[in-house]
Amino acid sequence: MNDHPTIALDAMGGDFGPQVVVPAALEILNHNQKVDLILVGDEGVLTQALASSPYLGNRLAIRHASEIVEMHEPPSKALRNKKDSSMRVAIDLVKEGKAAACVSAGNTGALMAISKFVLKTIPGIDRPAIIGVVPSLNGHTHVLDLGANVDSSAEHLRQFAIMAYELVKAVEHNPNPKVGLLNIGEEEIKGNEQVKQAMKLIAESHINFIGSVEGNDIYTGDVDIVVTDGFIGNVALKTSEGLAKMISEALKQAFSENLLTKLAGLIALPVLRTFRKRFDPRQYNGASLVGLRGIVVKSHGNADCVAFAKAIEIAILEIEHAVPEKIGARMAELIAEGMSA
Amino acid sequence: MNDHPTIALDAMGGDFGPQVVVPAALEILNHNQKVDLILVGDEGVLTQALASSPYLGNRLAIRHASEIVEMHEPPSKALRNKKDSSMRVAIDLVKEGKAAACVSAGNTGALMAISKFVLKTIPGIDRPAIIGVVPSLNGHTHVLDLGANVDSSAEHLRQFAIMAYELVKAVEHNPNPKVGLLNIGEEEIKGNEQVKQAMKLIAESHINFIGSVEGNDIYTGDVDIVVTDGFIGNVALKTSEGLAKMISEALKQAFSENLLTKLAGLIALPVLRTFRKRFDPRQYNGASLVGLRGIVVKSHGNADCVAFAKAIEIAILEIEHAVPEKIGARMAELIAEGMSA
Repeated sequence: MNDHPTIALDAMGGDFGPQVVVPAALEILNHNQKVDLILVGDEGVLTQALASSPYLGNRLAIRHASEIVEMHEPPSKALRNKKDSSMRVAIDLVKEGKAAACVSAGNTGALMAISKFVLKTIPGIDRPAIIGVVPSLNGHTHVLDLGANVDSSAEHLRQFAIMAYELVKAVEHNPNPKVGLLNIGEEEIKGNEQVKQAMKLIAESHINFIGSVEGNDIYTGDVDIVVTDGFIGNVALKTSEGLAKMISEALKQAFSENLLTKLAGLIALPVLRTFRKRFDPRQYNGASLVGLRGIVVKSHGNADCVAFAKAIEIAILEIEHAVPEKIGARMAELIAEGMSA
Repeated sequence: MNDHPTIALDAMGGDFGPQVVVPAALEILNHNQKVDLILVGDEGVLTQALASSPYLGNRLAIRHASEIVEMHEPPSKALRNKKDSSMRVAIDLVKEGKAAACVSAGNTGALMAISKFVLKTIPGIDRPAIIGVVPSLNGHTHVLDLGANVDSSAEHLRQFAIMAYELVKAVEHNPNPKVGLLNIGEEEIKGNEQVKQAMKLIAESHINFIGSVEGNDIYTGDVDIVVTDGFIGNVALKTSEGLAKMISEALKQAFSENLLTKLAGLIALPVLRTFRKRFDPRQYNGASLVGLRGIVVKSHGNADCVAFAKAIEIAILEIEHAVPEKIGARMAELIAEGMSA
């Protein structure tokens, strides 16, 4: 190992474990000279999978962990009982300063619970949030919270807004990202109580707050960050996944109707491929657990190698731009100003 | 006029007013022999627009109203100050028994406030809800509430579930529609407090309740009805609209890239048309305000003639199947059983 930043990968997490994590790790090492990796998991399995790799012992290490957090295991059980799980050990490595970030495709609830317990939150942040990226017409939009917190208070929404602002400012070289609070458009009944209060709090937070946005604004590209409660953010994300899948399926069906439509489909194939590539969900894999004193990135459980590598790249970006430190500095300022709870 | 059911149309509502409502009305009269219509609005404008129509004085009447509820007017102001608006008069006609339903493309909040004030809710129903239809992979899904109520209690969600069940059973000839409660999938933090309580209440309501569903289930076709709070339902709907628009736009862009892709687009055009037609939002126009002692259907403000006619067809269907009476009968049973608040 040298002085590059090191990332700990939960090699056993997700639907495919080492089958996906090992090739994704090698892919990253091939393309990025400035990062080292630790694969955390079953030593036997990992040693065998990496036997022929020139990186092993060079930029790649194996750290044994005897347990695995199951995908549907209750987070509190995983936290209490699985102290030698690949997920826990990977997070411990961040805590111990042996890794600068952790990436896992495992159980989201467990990853959140263990990360929060081991790494703790940044002073001024009550709850970490999950921030993800979705494509928009002219780029992409960051959305949080995607499901870590339900029944978020106005103060929590304010903290989400500040964290996202600092994160996007840092990793996107965007000096002043636009932040919107997800709301509904009806007059007078505009917003529920939590949102009405949050509007005021966020407006006082010295960020580029443009006010209410609606669901469709997630995709217009008119805003860089959309802030909402985890329940609502999760519904918006899952609804989008469902709709995208239905449209994709229907497009396939339309082109396979008969011989003529199949021929048209063959001719249109290169265009349809370009189109599909633009919105390939693998490109958008990797949601960050922001608000922790360390970097933790969650990959989709069913991510393939390309998608998992994207999640690692997000961790690299957040290390390079010292995201937790920047959020910490901002919160310290706000606390000094007497603005934080 | 004869003994066909009569529908009152707010001829001045929506972005286009009589320009859309008049041709939609004529379209309905041409294709449906068993319904009469009253156009409510500026008599001069409507008389001129209908001068050459053989239906005028036969199956079509004009009812003058001197005011118009503006699209962004606060509902409470419209309710208090515009007693001779086209919207108010159309709803009054339902109250007076001169029309069996009202259809309006006007201000949603005002339509809800005035309908609730004039028609009142069905005994056992605290708040009316807005129920709409979205396409799914194998048909369509009813979703409520779409924005009439924020901060709905568990009891409200239960009432929404019962109303939707009775409505879908009646109008779709589906003897036992499947009802799901919108939730998120994380373990342990599954659901917010309101949803956890609603799960119990709905399970005891003698309907075909399948439990939690997630955002993507709106589009899979695995459930007939998705119940949620108006804030969340509105976000899901608007998010879907935004995503669909982005995909449609990107598809257009992909096919207009260069001469070759344009040629491919030309060849694929009939297929793309079929595909677009399947999800044409005009087909899904018309959301019902359920829970009132009368039928009120809301059309999208920017509906064209085809879309507005669809909203009228929804009103016809609800009249034929006596939807408010069926909801009323069900609620009366539940009250008798001591189950309603």
